[in-house]
Amino acid sequence: MDNKFPSNASLWLSNGDQGLVQVLDQRVLPFETRIFEISTLEQACYAIREMVVRGAPLIGVTAAYGMYLAALNSDGPDREITMLQAEIALNATRPTAVNLFRMTGRMAAVYKQNKGKEDVVSDLLLEANRIRNEEIEACRLIGEYGLPLIREIGSRKKGQPVQILTHCNAGWLACVEWGTATAPIYLAHRMGIPIHVWVDETRPRNQGARLTAYELGLVGVPHTIIPDNAGGHLMQKGMVDMVITGSDRTTRNGDVANKIGTYLKAVAASDNGIPFYVALPSSTFDLDLVNGLDSIPVEERDASEVSFAEGWNGESISSVRIIPEKSPVANYGFDITPARLVTMLITEKGLCKPEEVSIVALINTKNE
Amino acid sequence: MDNKFPSNASLWLSNGDQGLVQVLDQRVLPFETRIFEISTLEQACYAIREMVVRGAPLIGVTAAYGMYLAALNSDGPDREITMLQAEIALNATRPTAVNLFRMTGRMAAVYKQNKGKEDVVSDLLLEANRIRNEEIEACRLIGEYGLPLIREIGSRKKGQPVQILTHCNAGWLACVEWGTATAPIYLAHRMGIPIHVWVDETRPRNQGARLTAYELGLVGVPHTIIPDNAGGHLMQKGMVDMVITGSDRTTRNGDVANKIGTYLKAVAASDNGIPFYVALPSSTFDLDLVNGLDSIPVEERDASEVSFAEGWNGESISSVRIIPEKSPVANYGFDITPARLVTMLITEKGLCKPEEVSIVALINTKNE
Repeated sequence: MDNKFPSNASLWLSNGDQGLVQVLDQRVLPFETRIFEISTLEQACYAIREMVVRGAPLIGVTAAYGMYLAALNSDGPDREITMLQAEIALNATRPTAVNLFRMTGRMAAVYKQNKGKEDVVSDLLLEANRIRNEEIEACRLIGEYGLPLIREIGSRKKGQPVQILTHCNAGWLACVEWGTATAPIYLAHRMGIPIHVWVDETRPRNQGARLTAYELGLVGVPHTIIPDNAGGHLMQKGMVDMVITGSDRTTRNGDVANKIGTYLKAVAASDNGIPFYVALPSSTFDLDLVNGLDSIPVEERDASEVSFAEGWNGESISSVRIIPEKSPVANYGFDITPARLVTMLITEKGLCKPEEVSIVALINTKNE
Repeated sequence: MDNKFPSNASLWLSNGDQGLVQVLDQRVLPFETRIFEISTLEQACYAIREMVVRGAPLIGVTAAYGMYLAALNSDGPDREITMLQAEIALNATRPTAVNLFRMTGRMAAVYKQNKGKEDVVSDLLLEANRIRNEEIEACRLIGEYGLPLIREIGSRKKGQPVQILTHCNAGWLACVEWGTATAPIYLAHRMGIPIHVWVDETRPRNQGARLTAYELGLVGVPHTIIPDNAGGHLMQKGMVDMVITGSDRTTRNGDVANKIGTYLKAVAASDNGIPFYVALPSSTFDLDLVNGLDSIPVEERDASEVSFAEGWNGESISSVRIIPEKSPVANYGFDITPARLVTMLITEKGLCKPEEVSIVALINTKNE
């Protein structure tokens, strides 16, 4: 069994065992590097439901392999009912993840088309691999299209590092490889362009401090963790050259829903004349929505994420209460950055202005 | 011994014992309500140095009583040298606190003037009480001048609560009673104006979540703790009517140095047409400084404040590490909010526009 993880991937197939998918257990990062093994449908469901894996693209890919494993572990007349049950079970793990439904649907369609064939399981493995590779390729292309933006600033900095601020985790831990916001960063780093990343802690779940910092550290990208409060000060002092974030959902006019706090960085970037980029696969556009502030519902999450801080106590992961016992808490999951504050969208189909005409044209572009 | 604290004061004299000053031990708030007793110079020094007490006004008042206690506990020829040593010892506890030097200086002057008199100790107690009462009165007046701003918004809200956002702790825990940013809030609450306060957590030291929430909770002011990331979203959604913060230092043209993250709220308030008020005693103005961004040095604090979260583990106060072990951290203590983003300054001498002419005129106003 090969359980050495490849340092820049959140999910990989075990060498030599087509029935074993391995993922990084993101619940214990960055305090422990623990591999979680998925060789059954049930383990795939558990991994998604318990947030061993997280991030829409990674959830979709994990679910695709879950469908494949369900087929692999069943045969004969049982397989038909198993596959139906597998789709239902996987879709129930994180009911709001649109990407999840799309990927289990693709796998179910491949099963239906090929169920009469002897090598239907191989077909399902091929489709799961295809889904994974599509996600990786979309991220890689986001990197390619974003790279010139970093290079251009670098060319003006005479060897000084390009200072990039990012919020939350839009890295390969949320995808499979490369990530979205991080793809241009990793590519620039590989190309030898000097960069330094300011990593917003990203309260309340601390995805920046825990996951983005971990990712960047693994491959040696220079970075510094800052409280979410600090970004404005750094911008005022000329210590930020550009901001790159991801997006959970972007409207047809370019309003960007992303992790709570993104808007504060966008408005400060605008106040300081700093470009604010959003990196996203084009599947993140929701052309049915126009005005983001009015149309995108903002999830309210559990108060305990604000009331407690989770960390390493020297021996294990534990939580401490950080507020008075009786004080109420509000915990909004994301906010909307109006298109007027976004300099450019970076997608796998190219750069795109945050305005309706450009976004619709981009969506209608055929993939190369 | 009376050690029941009066619910809205950070420091008080024990009833019936002129040699005993009591303070709330702010190191353990809000998890424990512990009274710390000061009856010697050494205890006063300890309380300031170890941050049992914090906030410039409260530090100054504690130091004044420290000078008084030094005199009370010495006599004859020893007292002269004791008083000299007391001033040196107190000034060394928190070397950057200007207010501290000013108050020990006032006490030393009273001692020098009256040291030949038999009741010099009484004179020192009177001066310490005067210093304390001046601080309380300044805060109360800030409340009086700020109240109409809340009342005016309240009159338009038809019984709905006035939604006030505040950052960090500028309450009576930093002062003696009332606080600065909180003074108009407490006064409005007493007057029966419906209000609700959004309390910014205020990473990395969490003074909002720990101290401001504790203060407001004690006297029943409706409030909700939010991550620092959330304020912009609330403003966009029309859920904030006004922002009030304190200030560590304000320049002659109205640039405001305050806790890191204040600028992000100011720029978002401006983007949403929400008034942004700064409450400060006029002693906080530094007329020697013009441009805040260029002239006010921003303290860099210890990385451990960002790397660790302190809270209650169910049995005691403990810390957990919340970032990867090897990731670097930056920890800037405050930021500068440019005068253009400040709607009005609220001082004990009245409201004041954040511009040089108004500030200089205000400073030259005699106290009533």
